[in-house]
Amino acid sequence: MDIQLKNKLLKNDRDYVWHPFTQMKDYEKQDHVLIEKAEGIYLYDADGSKYYDTVSSWWVNIHGHSHPRIRAAIDKQMSEMDHVMFSGFTHRPAIELSEKLVEITPEGLNKVFFSDNGSTAVEVALKMSFQYWLHLGKKEKNKFVFLDNSYHGDTIGAVSVGGVELFHSVFKPLLFDSYKVSSPNPFAWQQKGVSEDEAVSKCLDEVRSLFEEKAEEIAGFVIEPLVQAAGGMIVYPSSYLIGIRELCDEFDIHLIADEVAVGFGRTGKLFACEHAGISPDLMCLSKGLTAGVMPLSVTLSTLKIFDAFYDEYETFKTFFHGHSFTGNPLACAVALENLKIFEDNKVIEMIQPTSKYLQQRFPEFSDLKHIGNVRGIGMIAAMDIFEDKAKGLNYATNKRTGYQVYLTGLKHGLIMRPLGDTIYVWLPLCTTIDDIDQILYKINNVLIDLELA
Amino acid sequence: MDIQLKNKLLKNDRDYVWHPFTQMKDYEKQDHVLIEKAEGIYLYDADGSKYYDTVSSWWVNIHGHSHPRIRAAIDKQMSEMDHVMFSGFTHRPAIELSEKLVEITPEGLNKVFFSDNGSTAVEVALKMSFQYWLHLGKKEKNKFVFLDNSYHGDTIGAVSVGGVELFHSVFKPLLFDSYKVSSPNPFAWQQKGVSEDEAVSKCLDEVRSLFEEKAEEIAGFVIEPLVQAAGGMIVYPSSYLIGIRELCDEFDIHLIADEVAVGFGRTGKLFACEHAGISPDLMCLSKGLTAGVMPLSVTLSTLKIFDAFYDEYETFKTFFHGHSFTGNPLACAVALENLKIFEDNKVIEMIQPTSKYLQQRFPEFSDLKHIGNVRGIGMIAAMDIFEDKAKGLNYATNKRTGYQVYLTGLKHGLIMRPLGDTIYVWLPLCTTIDDIDQILYKINNVLIDLELA
Repeated sequence: MDIQLKNKLLKNDRDYVWHPFTQMKDYEKQDHVLIEKAEGIYLYDADGSKYYDTVSSWWVNIHGHSHPRIRAAIDKQMSEMDHVMFSGFTHRPAIELSEKLVEITPEGLNKVFFSDNGSTAVEVALKMSFQYWLHLGKKEKNKFVFLDNSYHGDTIGAVSVGGVELFHSVFKPLLFDSYKVSSPNPFAWQQKGVSEDEAVSKCLDEVRSLFEEKAEEIAGFVIEPLVQAAGGMIVYPSSYLIGIRELCDEFDIHLIADEVAVGFGRTGKLFACEHAGISPDLMCLSKGLTAGVMPLSVTLSTLKIFDAFYDEYETFKTFFHGHSFTGNPLACAVALENLKIFEDNKVIEMIQPTSKYLQQRFPEFSDLKHIGNVRGIGMIAAMDIFEDKAKGLNYATNKRTGYQVYLTGLKHGLIMRPLGDTIYVWLPLCTTIDDIDQILYKINNVLIDLELA
Repeated sequence: MDIQLKNKLLKNDRDYVWHPFTQMKDYEKQDHVLIEKAEGIYLYDADGSKYYDTVSSWWVNIHGHSHPRIRAAIDKQMSEMDHVMFSGFTHRPAIELSEKLVEITPEGLNKVFFSDNGSTAVEVALKMSFQYWLHLGKKEKNKFVFLDNSYHGDTIGAVSVGGVELFHSVFKPLLFDSYKVSSPNPFAWQQKGVSEDEAVSKCLDEVRSLFEEKAEEIAGFVIEPLVQAAGGMIVYPSSYLIGIRELCDEFDIHLIADEVAVGFGRTGKLFACEHAGISPDLMCLSKGLTAGVMPLSVTLSTLKIFDAFYDEYETFKTFFHGHSFTGNPLACAVALENLKIFEDNKVIEMIQPTSKYLQQRFPEFSDLKHIGNVRGIGMIAAMDIFEDKAKGLNYATNKRTGYQVYLTGLKHGLIMRPLGDTIYVWLPLCTTIDDIDQILYKINNVLIDLELA
């Protein structure tokens, strides 16, 4: 890109743009990285520098960027129908996508409600669960349970079931009351001398106690299956998820699976719930749904929930919720093509050796002086930075070590975005073993540069 | 479309899709209209029948459907960069769009925060306003004021400032406390013998009283400028908006303008606030932002608000909010092309004669026996159905007269979607005078068919 244009764009970025989850003062002297081109698993900046997109652009990209099949699918759809309202009207892309999603998601999820992003998909699930109990005459069942460190989005309903203090505590006066339970975070429990199995057992006991006391006022339990992503890439055992499904059944509480981040192969199976062999009552999908190309989300529900809203109009049991672009044909066409690529390329089979390789090699970082708590599943792997590993002591917040990893990563051709001092990769599913070798080599160099090795 | 395919799709729609704002039992025998093609201001169903899209597909479409320039803009963007995360990274389409939006929106709105739909744009505004006061040490300023009959979206924060009982009352236990004030709805006041000017005066007095008593705990006043759309296409005088701006200034309260529906020319000016000559402190845009093609929204803020978040990271004043597809390059490229079409085709000039014509002719419906309260502005016009017009008596809810208008409209080649018994048109800006003649002629026939004439 022409240097004048680049400078003008960077000036205008500073003048006019408010970036998400960003302290804008961080960019008073530092420029935002101006990306000009995205292709495969690479991003290219305005100077032509090439970066591995090791975070799949906020965990969305699946088959690589600017995929020619996705491009063709959008163009075909634009030639026929851009958008049409989805109340009173319907169209082939949304119908075919719904059929497909019911087919591939866990058994019992039979109805598809569209919205635009993960937050709205979660809001839809919460509202459906809440209203379901109301229709059953159990209006006191109106509270939700969530895990410490959970993240389900940034709209007020989603924040109300969020457990990341840094993001969520400030908005407390606007939130509805929910119950927070302990996360089965293996590392945190291990620090207290509790084994993984014991931790699961303790956490399930806590939920059982809560349910025994409060089930009458609990509508649903909302959870990120297997990986609490934004909360710090916490990977927990599937036995916890199995236990929660059993408890929800026993106490007549909806299990709401938020697979916005972990869905679509990221954990090595198409959906994370499959690791536990369970079906939730409501399931939220987004991010990878469109292969990471454009916004779209769905909330899938059981027939049992759907049927509680199905009645004569005058009973006012309608689920009054909708967004202008609900079921947007362009996004649906993209999602359909995404799922066809999954099938045609046998993507889930394809990632078995690569994810196995990633999980074998990532623990090598444990040997480094300031690195510990290495964990992962599928195409996700994470590690924490410690000032004193033996004591489990982190660096002071104002050292901003994670932020230095982002900056230093850029110099090594890596797009990284640590969560605090948690460094992670969240790889596009098309990443090869050779790519993984390159990425790990570069990460190692970043850690050496920062004297963390 | 092949009849077998059509039947299969309609069966699958029934089996798998949960439509927004829809009592699904309404479609037990009645099919959803299966739209196959969208072009210009027409939609075509699977049998090849052609319909005028008189509601701009839920108030989003601007230049007609499947516009060739928009199609080209998407394809060009897809050839370069589908999507990249917007935290730590930036790109030309979002920067250029931000610059443009700051240029064309009311003065003082200088920073652009992206999200995906109207609900999230409103949530962003509410959260920014709330957090602004917190940063100023005024944490007790944490409540919002909204108008009776207002609609700002369906996520829990947006519902908390919603005034449509039918949609919102059921979720009461999940909502945060807000203050509702009377709508300056001219017709409702007229029914009580109060003139339009007096009504504005009374409504402003009510707000003044509230502010005098509660300003210390009020963060912001959220409003749909000039038209309360989903609440029943209520068109109110700009003098009310001017008065609210003055009161907000006097009592140090943010004015949040939700122009999601009314923005982008729909009222005859680019933004509805221009009718009142005012600048809000926060402004939400979506729907027409992408010419109605795909989801995207923005919240614009003043520098004053932005600056209250601008500080060293360790002060934790960051606005922790974001969505995966924040600033999606595809959507930004579409929005930029939309704004170029506005300029190239001089769209705001172009709609002056058509909107004038619409506003001249629509009142002819007042002559019909069961039609009253005809009103409108720009390319929006509405009327109400009455069982007894003289007495202002509506039909019983279970007659579902508005729903009959939707069904009968289809037979006449019209896409209509009455709000209860309010019939309205919300025309694409490219609608011509000839089109308007055709549409009004057809609406008249619908009313005759239903014995409302």
